[in-house]
Amino acid sequence: MRVRVGCEFHYDVPAPTPTVWQVRPRAEPAQQLVSESWETKPALARSSYHDSYGNICDRLTLPAGQTVVRYDAEVEVPGVYDDADITAPQIAVESLPDDTMVYLLPSRFCPSDMMRDHAWQLFGTTEPGWARVVAVCDWVHENVQFQIGSSNPLTSSLDVWDSRMGVCRDFSHLGLTLCRALNIPARYAFGYLPDIGVPPPYAAMDFCAWFEAYLGGRWWTFDPRNNVPRMGRVVIGRGRDALDVAMVTSYGAPILQSMHVWADEVRDPES
Amino acid sequence: MRVRVGCEFHYDVPAPTPTVWQVRPRAEPAQQLVSESWETKPALARSSYHDSYGNICDRLTLPAGQTVVRYDAEVEVPGVYDDADITAPQIAVESLPDDTMVYLLPSRFCPSDMMRDHAWQLFGTTEPGWARVVAVCDWVHENVQFQIGSSNPLTSSLDVWDSRMGVCRDFSHLGLTLCRALNIPARYAFGYLPDIGVPPPYAAMDFCAWFEAYLGGRWWTFDPRNNVPRMGRVVIGRGRDALDVAMVTSYGAPILQSMHVWADEVRDPES
Amino acid sequence: MRVRVGCEFHYDVPAPTPTVWQVRPRAEPAQQLVSESWETKPALARSSYHDSYGNICDRLTLPAGQTVVRYDAEVEVPGVYDDADITAPQIAVESLPDDTMVYLLPSRFCPSDMMRDHAWQLFGTTEPGWARVVAVCDWVHENVQFQIGSSNPLTSSLDVWDSRMGVCRDFSHLGLTLCRALNIPARYAFGYLPDIGVPPPYAAMDFCAWFEAYLGGRWWTFDPRNNVPRMGRVVIGRGRDALDVAMVTSYGAPILQSMHVWADEVRDPES
Amino acid sequence: MRVRVGCEFHYDVPAPTPTVWQVRPRAEPAQQLVSESWETKPALARSSYHDSYGNICDRLTLPAGQTVVRYDAEVEVPGVYDDADITAPQIAVESLPDDTMVYLLPSRFCPSDMMRDHAWQLFGTTEPGWARVVAVCDWVHENVQFQIGSSNPLTSSLDVWDSRMGVCRDFSHLGLTLCRALNIPARYAFGYLPDIGVPPPYAAMDFCAWFEAYLGGRWWTFDPRNNVPRMGRVVIGRGRDALDVAMVTSYGAPILQSMHVWADEVRDPES
Repeated sequence: MRVRVGCEFHYDVPAPTPTVWQVRPRAEPAQQLVSESWETKPALARSSYHDSYGNICDRLTLPAGQTVVRYDAEVEVPGVYDDADITAPQIAVESLPDDTMVYLLPSRFCPSDMMRDHAWQLFGTTEPGWARVVAVCDWVHENVQFQIGSSNPLTSSLDVWDSRMGVCRDFSHLGLTLCRALNIPARYAFGYLPDIGVPPPYAAMDFCAWFEAYLGGRWWTFDPRNNVPRMGRVVIGRGRDALDVAMVTSYGAPILQSMHVWADEVRDPES
Repeated sequence: MRVRVGCEFHYDVPAPTPTVWQVRPRAEPAQQLVSESWETKPALARSSYHDSYGNICDRLTLPAGQTVVRYDAEVEVPGVYDDADITAPQIAVESLPDDTMVYLLPSRFCPSDMMRDHAWQLFGTTEPGWARVVAVCDWVHENVQFQIGSSNPLTSSLDVWDSRMGVCRDFSHLGLTLCRALNIPARYAFGYLPDIGVPPPYAAMDFCAWFEAYLGGRWWTFDPRNNVPRMGRVVIGRGRDALDVAMVTSYGAPILQSMHVWADEVRDPES
Repeated sequence: MRVRVGCEFHYDVPAPTPTVWQVRPRAEPAQQLVSESWETKPALARSSYHDSYGNICDRLTLPAGQTVVRYDAEVEVPGVYDDADITAPQIAVESLPDDTMVYLLPSRFCPSDMMRDHAWQLFGTTEPGWARVVAVCDWVHENVQFQIGSSNPLTSSLDVWDSRMGVCRDFSHLGLTLCRALNIPARYAFGYLPDIGVPPPYAAMDFCAWFEAYLGGRWWTFDPRNNVPRMGRVVIGRGRDALDVAMVTSYGAPILQSMHVWADEVRDPES
Repeated sequence: MRVRVGCEFHYDVPAPTPTVWQVRPRAEPAQQLVSESWETKPALARSSYHDSYGNICDRLTLPAGQTVVRYDAEVEVPGVYDDADITAPQIAVESLPDDTMVYLLPSRFCPSDMMRDHAWQLFGTTEPGWARVVAVCDWVHENVQFQIGSSNPLTSSLDVWDSRMGVCRDFSHLGLTLCRALNIPARYAFGYLPDIGVPPPYAAMDFCAWFEAYLGGRWWTFDPRNNVPRMGRVVIGRGRDALDVAMVTSYGAPILQSMHVWADEVRDPES
């Protein structure tokens, strides 16, 4: 399945402002680039690096004045719904692979160390493994109200627990925090999500956050915001929480004048 | 300079308990192992890995009942005080090496995103670079009271800001949080610290936390708890904050019956 | 199964000689350390690092005169024969995981680029996958004569192809070179191998080299020297060929006076 | 300084052919991308990864028939000649950083283990450090004749030693082999090289291989083919030798019909 993804940001900055961008699809076999373009006005040099999670980061310094940054790509992804296996068992902590251990720890926005009691009270009697993560997602989906503007860049999952409101970032944070508190490795994921094969109420999101849980020997996608299987996700980044995967991190006070993001199926790819 | 370091933990656990240990010196040229022993009673198999910061982690599962874990090593370290260079300049964000960028971000115990105003109000008029970090350390040293028991495993630097009390972990957290808020990369460091060449009031610490700040092209040791140059540090780990460098992380409810840590100069090493 | 492994080297060197050691078991879940000791006479400081393959390397400088280096460990490994799955299919090159690609390339001792014709002539009609690798191992086992002293540190698999003689290192090199020439990722492995459950002719090896081939989604052990399933392997290192996994690499002209290696089952481990 | 670099390959293949490409500039601060485009006809999906040296590798499968692959980029690089410091000392093996050690080992095309005697005879009396590497480069430049077609993809530096003929790849291989034999870490480098500020005889190269030697705490560029300081290098990759940095590695028998490479200064960049 071919998906066209991208974004365009218009900035006005009073002084030169260093920025780090995470808008490019992660390099992985399941999402192959067909074309890609990166454009800035004025033309700006950028340097790239991979962070410790393997996410692609682009650094560029916005000059004083107006800047447009535009990224556009066509990506080939499997034309199937999110994988699922209701028999996937929970792995005992002592048997978890070494590189999943970090995803049991609390993090800035996911203080699982402060939510153990909540988690065990709500989900301690559910069946460990797949069913338990589904129970977490269902609970978050039903108990948190989606509302633009209800959270801010400092909102943690504990705040969401209290307010019961948030956006997709917050749904993910709360879901993954509860999983960690239940000793299930869980990590934040972020990317483009076209609205393919879903009824209107769920549609019209282009950037989206979800989370991944480690069960039965691999990572699985869980999306408590939508809570229905989706197709066409293009992963930009993964990390402990939203801090590790910010579209733009800026050091200064840039004024974002407008921002547009797209993620659409390409129906008849020439190839 | 030869230092003998180690620790001994006595546990009693009701059920098999997975644990992760960080007690071994990091593998780096400045601290060379002369001898090393790791002993458990009963004899337990352990597997090792390096986390994403390069710290050595040992995994072992405590069986039900009593367990003793003992680590002991002799390490050769430079016989000099902590490096210092009062001319080390602050590096502009756009010129920082890629791998330092993560240490500008907030973390679980160091919410620098919530302390920007405090940081700039207190230190915004100090000279950027070495002097600014020293100002941070002096302020923390003078304004936070060292008091065993004043903090717990959930205490963040914001809590310390409010309470003005803590242990070396908290001094470090607050110092590095303020640095990050001032756009100076700063990371948590943890290890053994013998009391060599210091007057009594500062002595008698064996495990210790400090922090490192990136100035003038390298990382430097800053220790707001002691706030005097020290000798003989043996680094166990580095990370975003104390979460990444816990002596023991356990999954269950082990009862720690006793714990003993040592760090002493070896006066006449046979060699 | 508990295995005791280790080695002792006696050196006499005319001048200080830098050395790099690979004698410690790789840190991986399937081989867990129960105890470990490292001793030198005189006592020497050593620093450690992980090479790009994840092997543990220890650096130490032998002083002028006599030095003894001794490593000893008890390791818990699964008490089963080498895994096998005769249905494991060959993976098409375009579907191989990224991190296996390097093991399709030639290397210093395994010039697969010079042996394509040989490989395809001999094995081009065998069934791809498990059967093809077995055919390679059988052929190497039957056509190369094991003879101590028949090869030296410069011997490549092409030399072995010509001479039809070698030691376990050479058997492995030839086997893995043929696999690479057949587009099957193959890497060199090296470690301790006790003689458990094998009849006398195969016994009495303590250090041993074998190779691993990538089939059906994972790496499998193949050992053309022994060519029978074995038990109790303790992997020290893996790499492109023997260059990446040398017990000792020295920079100078040390005289090795004696060397002793052990790998034995521990029948009644106290624990 | 702005440089425009890129390449265009025309292939005709009888059957689908997996390929790995290394044509994109390495992600590093000294070479910043201003724009970049990657185009294939027909449009082909590609996946990317970083190899263990940090080089960018793009995988794509050429379909049966004709394919055009075109890469084009504008890159900002420092407008200065290759760095040099004639006082840079040789670092004793025991003091070399861990990650340089692999570049002392022989490799497929650089069998330094077979050239120790040659190296020490020729250069053993030169002054260690910068002067010794310059002596190596001068010797290679003067004693090897540049001749297109004199070597092939299997040619090692030992072959070049014998034939005294080669292309830039071979000059680099021989130079770096001699350095390794002299205990100086040396690695292969490959990239785009515009002919800026050089007299005609040296001009008109667009892809070029050189090598880097580790002296006085950092890596330095040495180019025994040109043997004069150059400007505007855009590094694609680094590795042990040319094997690790091949523009195209293909698994099958593709017919390359034409190939064009460019590397030119952009005189008046709009920005």
